[in-house]
Amino acid sequence: MQGSSDFSPACPIPLQQYPHVLLAHGGGGKLMHQLLEQLFATAFANPLLDRRHDSAVFESPAPRLAFTTDSFVVRPLFFPGGDIGSMAVYGTVNDLAMAGARPLYLSASFILEEGLPMETLWRIVCSMQQAARRAGVKIVTGDTKVVDKGKGDGLFLNTAGIGGIEHSRTIAPQSVQPGDVLLVNGDLGRHGMAILAVREGLEFQCIIESDSAPVADLVLQLLRENIELHCLRDLTRGGLASALNEISEAACRQILVEEKLIPVREDVHAACEMLGFDPLHVACEGRFVAFVAPNDAERALAILRSHPLGEQAARVGIVREAASPGVSLKSSIGAHRILDMLSGEQLPRIC
Amino acid sequence: MQGSSDFSPACPIPLQQYPHVLLAHGGGGKLMHQLLEQLFATAFANPLLDRRHDSAVFESPAPRLAFTTDSFVVRPLFFPGGDIGSMAVYGTVNDLAMAGARPLYLSASFILEEGLPMETLWRIVCSMQQAARRAGVKIVTGDTKVVDKGKGDGLFLNTAGIGGIEHSRTIAPQSVQPGDVLLVNGDLGRHGMAILAVREGLEFQCIIESDSAPVADLVLQLLRENIELHCLRDLTRGGLASALNEISEAACRQILVEEKLIPVREDVHAACEMLGFDPLHVACEGRFVAFVAPNDAERALAILRSHPLGEQAARVGIVREAASPGVSLKSSIGAHRILDMLSGEQLPRIC
Repeated sequence: MQGSSDFSPACPIPLQQYPHVLLAHGGGGKLMHQLLEQLFATAFANPLLDRRHDSAVFESPAPRLAFTTDSFVVRPLFFPGGDIGSMAVYGTVNDLAMAGARPLYLSASFILEEGLPMETLWRIVCSMQQAARRAGVKIVTGDTKVVDKGKGDGLFLNTAGIGGIEHSRTIAPQSVQPGDVLLVNGDLGRHGMAILAVREGLEFQCIIESDSAPVADLVLQLLRENIELHCLRDLTRGGLASALNEISEAACRQILVEEKLIPVREDVHAACEMLGFDPLHVACEGRFVAFVAPNDAERALAILRSHPLGEQAARVGIVREAASPGVSLKSSIGAHRILDMLSGEQLPRIC
Repeated sequence: MQGSSDFSPACPIPLQQYPHVLLAHGGGGKLMHQLLEQLFATAFANPLLDRRHDSAVFESPAPRLAFTTDSFVVRPLFFPGGDIGSMAVYGTVNDLAMAGARPLYLSASFILEEGLPMETLWRIVCSMQQAARRAGVKIVTGDTKVVDKGKGDGLFLNTAGIGGIEHSRTIAPQSVQPGDVLLVNGDLGRHGMAILAVREGLEFQCIIESDSAPVADLVLQLLRENIELHCLRDLTRGGLASALNEISEAACRQILVEEKLIPVREDVHAACEMLGFDPLHVACEGRFVAFVAPNDAERALAILRSHPLGEQAARVGIVREAASPGVSLKSSIGAHRILDMLSGEQLPRIC
């Protein structure tokens, strides 16, 4: 139940000699060289990385490019349904997909705390490699820093990514139109509740697994089928509520969502209720909202549902003709209320 | 004497209300939104960033691209000659330049420790913006995470970068040839000694300032003048010694450098001697070594010296015909010794 890194070949660093990460592993000398060559280069091996240069160099993959970055500080490092490594790959892959790009190249930069078990680092690196293979991307450049004990928290991870845009659509908040239909590709709130449960030692009826997954395939499928996609946004920190408020503001459009249409698993719903969370504010790591022209909505929904990562896809709302931005929610009993972003922090370090 | 961030407009976040970074500034809600909109977007404003999308989208700038990343954990955050912000911009710009690329687009990802003074964050962000302007790059995408107090060290920073390659040379260790001449663009060891001096409260005759600077201009000038450049490497962690050993190994060539040709300022030399450091192992942040075909070496040297960041450029060594890799140093008294990488760590967290 420790996520996607169940399979790891033996750590190539001699663990009896180096059971833990040392400051010297970030020092630019022999130990760092050994870490790069034996651990990272072994796991991530590919022709671009193998050139061992300060930058990866490659042919430009498309006339338009997407470029994004995310740092990951999730606690704990391993959780049901994933770990910081796979999450860092999928998070950046998904951000590229949200621009309608095909994710291609990733960087990986590690900030290690002195004393981190070498075995832990190896498990995370193996998980990244498996996630990269699943998502069809290559890790082509990287960096490692080590901070003194007590000045970090085991491991922080940054990925940046480049994707190629192979179509001419402008997928952005500015393309959102009145009448656009909002689709989500699955049930909401699982990632946040999975992290909370494992962090707080909560036990529910069954273990809630994170939804962490790469969704680029779904987006590329929609584009291949020429769905009139206007905007995409992944539902990470702040959940659906923050995503819709950001888009509403950037697009200057009003959005209406219907609570009873939004898929939330029963166990997640129960956990949220017990702990006072609203699933619409809880982060997902494999879910997105798509703004689709009304004529294409049914077809788009069918495409999403035919993919393993979109079986629970649903139509959840609509963009309204209105003079000012805003997001309103029609509750299950029919009342309307404003769906705002949270002001503060409900669940720190979930990603 | 606090680096390049002497000029900062007033912080756009109300400091009486938010004197320090809170966990909620990374929570995906209103406070994070305010931080992104008021602080980052104000400082870094440009049309690509202004689109507020998960990824920046732009036309591919060249047939070949370079892609790189670095995380920065330098302590203290401000030091004579620079700060973590300018350093994070120049570091990635320089890595792109080492592939012969024109640096164009940067990402910036912040890992903030709860309690970091907001004013400090603002100064660093302003310094990044000034550095980006100086280096001719745009910060087009980013991310912010906040970790709980005691789980970070003020601020860690990651930048990734994309550059365009506008020539057909292969600038890489594999292109190094016997007979190639080694040039450096200036005196060595200043960055490491500047950090050490300020960190340990050491006082020398005068303050040693970091050499932190963007060197892409020099490289582009060499390329424009059609210098036969074979390889480039910036002299960061591990200094000249690590850089040459890495290239020697990747290129499978032997390198000979002459101690008396290597420019080291007298105050840096004295500080190194006093503290038991070898300037050839000390990190620079605005210095690189260039491997140049022998016929072009004099011309390349003249080009470097005509640039403000290359006035002290010097010819320091040569690549030898030999069956195995290795780096040797001809000392000032004429003896030869192996110039190896250090095994451990001499100066943690200098970048």
